[in-house]
Amino acid sequence: MLEIVSQNRCFGGAQFVYRHVSRETGTPMRFAAFVPPQAERERRPVLWYLSGLTCTEENVTVKGGAQRVAAELGLIFIAPDTSPRGEGVPGDPQNAYDFGLGAGFYVDATEPPYDKNYHMRSYIETELPGIIEANLPADMSRQGITGHSMGGHGAITIALRNPGRFRSVSAFAPIASPIHCPWGQKALTGYLGADQAGWRAYDSCALIDDGHRVGRLLVDQGGADTFLTTQLKPELLAAACERSGIPLTLRMQEGYDHSYYFIATFIEDHLRYHAAAMA
Amino acid sequence: MLEIVSQNRCFGGAQFVYRHVSRETGTPMRFAAFVPPQAERERRPVLWYLSGLTCTEENVTVKGGAQRVAAELGLIFIAPDTSPRGEGVPGDPQNAYDFGLGAGFYVDATEPPYDKNYHMRSYIETELPGIIEANLPADMSRQGITGHSMGGHGAITIALRNPGRFRSVSAFAPIASPIHCPWGQKALTGYLGADQAGWRAYDSCALIDDGHRVGRLLVDQGGADTFLTTQLKPELLAAACERSGIPLTLRMQEGYDHSYYFIATFIEDHLRYHAAAMA
Repeated sequence: MLEIVSQNRCFGGAQFVYRHVSRETGTPMRFAAFVPPQAERERRPVLWYLSGLTCTEENVTVKGGAQRVAAELGLIFIAPDTSPRGEGVPGDPQNAYDFGLGAGFYVDATEPPYDKNYHMRSYIETELPGIIEANLPADMSRQGITGHSMGGHGAITIALRNPGRFRSVSAFAPIASPIHCPWGQKALTGYLGADQAGWRAYDSCALIDDGHRVGRLLVDQGGADTFLTTQLKPELLAAACERSGIPLTLRMQEGYDHSYYFIATFIEDHLRYHAAAMA
Repeated sequence: MLEIVSQNRCFGGAQFVYRHVSRETGTPMRFAAFVPPQAERERRPVLWYLSGLTCTEENVTVKGGAQRVAAELGLIFIAPDTSPRGEGVPGDPQNAYDFGLGAGFYVDATEPPYDKNYHMRSYIETELPGIIEANLPADMSRQGITGHSMGGHGAITIALRNPGRFRSVSAFAPIASPIHCPWGQKALTGYLGADQAGWRAYDSCALIDDGHRVGRLLVDQGGADTFLTTQLKPELLAAACERSGIPLTLRMQEGYDHSYYFIATFIEDHLRYHAAAMA
């Protein structure tokens, strides 16, 4: 059962926020969906946007500015939450921002106590697509996926693990290799345990080295992003794409930081990139 | 002294949030300023945006989507806060959202205890323009003004009281006549006292009937706005413009509500309207 939390007319379409009880997380989950005006007449392609640390479905929905271009191009724009939430859902023991609530990392946790609710991989890969197909005027044969930071990692890894599902993949300032940065090491240890063999299914570069492929990849990265060298490390993704022959367009955007001002500036390019692939 | 709270590269320009101690309010005040890329070479026109109840300088800055068009058109986009804030600043005795903090109504209060800090008229009309002229690459001979709801009331009344200062005036869902709606009656009673003679300087329709004029006026109003008939009453503004010969373009936007989704949808039209007048 999909409950409408809010519905606002926007650029001739409608911005929805939905709530439903998730089978995967065992909690109520929210997601935002912009439905373009063209969807009144026909099923439209779907662009997924996976958000970064601390975010909910709200951040890109109110700050990203995607609706104007999505309305023009006729794209359904889906923004899920980033973790299970609510009573009984364990968070970070130190209440840090980079693990637990708002930091699901798009993995299926195997370590207690997180293994009960933190099934964000299956939620995004399996459960939510079924809900969208059943309830929205979506053409699921035409999907694209993008995301920011932790959500950029999510987008790229989900696309790599599900060949043929997405016509197009892009990312804003993605975590290139969780195995090789403090955010990722903390999250993967906490959700999956210390054995790094299990981490490779959640690392863009490891997935590529293990033979997974996407057709091509667009990445925008702010040159003034404070997380650039410590956490994001796009050079690792560039090297993996180079080794494997995946055509990567990596655009270093001088002066831009990790904020939604960066995303809002370049989101139009990404929507047009995805729409062209889904035409 | 103007202190930079934050600075983010955005659409080739820069989104600033500034803080300064205000002579008028006796408190620290924040305002947001988007400076377009063209301002690196020459002083640029200024568009003021006055926000509505509950808002700070942040709402339109993160939700309005004005920067993209302001960058294209070369406009400096200024978003002030809506009231004084901080220790010792009196709020609404009942902690309501429609008086006191976040609800300055762009008046100079005369009633204690509000008369000490609530000088939003003088702050916006006199103090802040001086700060902007002194510190930003602004061409103050080319200014336009707009706003939302309470800030639409602010924009129209400030333009009416300052003939010749603004090349262009517009509003999103403005309170047309504070004298004739519960929000306005509560605010004007609280800030100015029960004598309604003093209210006329803060009422678009009364100012027009008392002989004040603007060249023309653009207003967008959502048809599904829950405040339309109880608080906003655009028909009162339409009648005053009709009586006085002010050319009013009042666009009723079917299905749109009072939210920033409505503003984001139509803000491009307003920026182009102002830029054409300031060319």
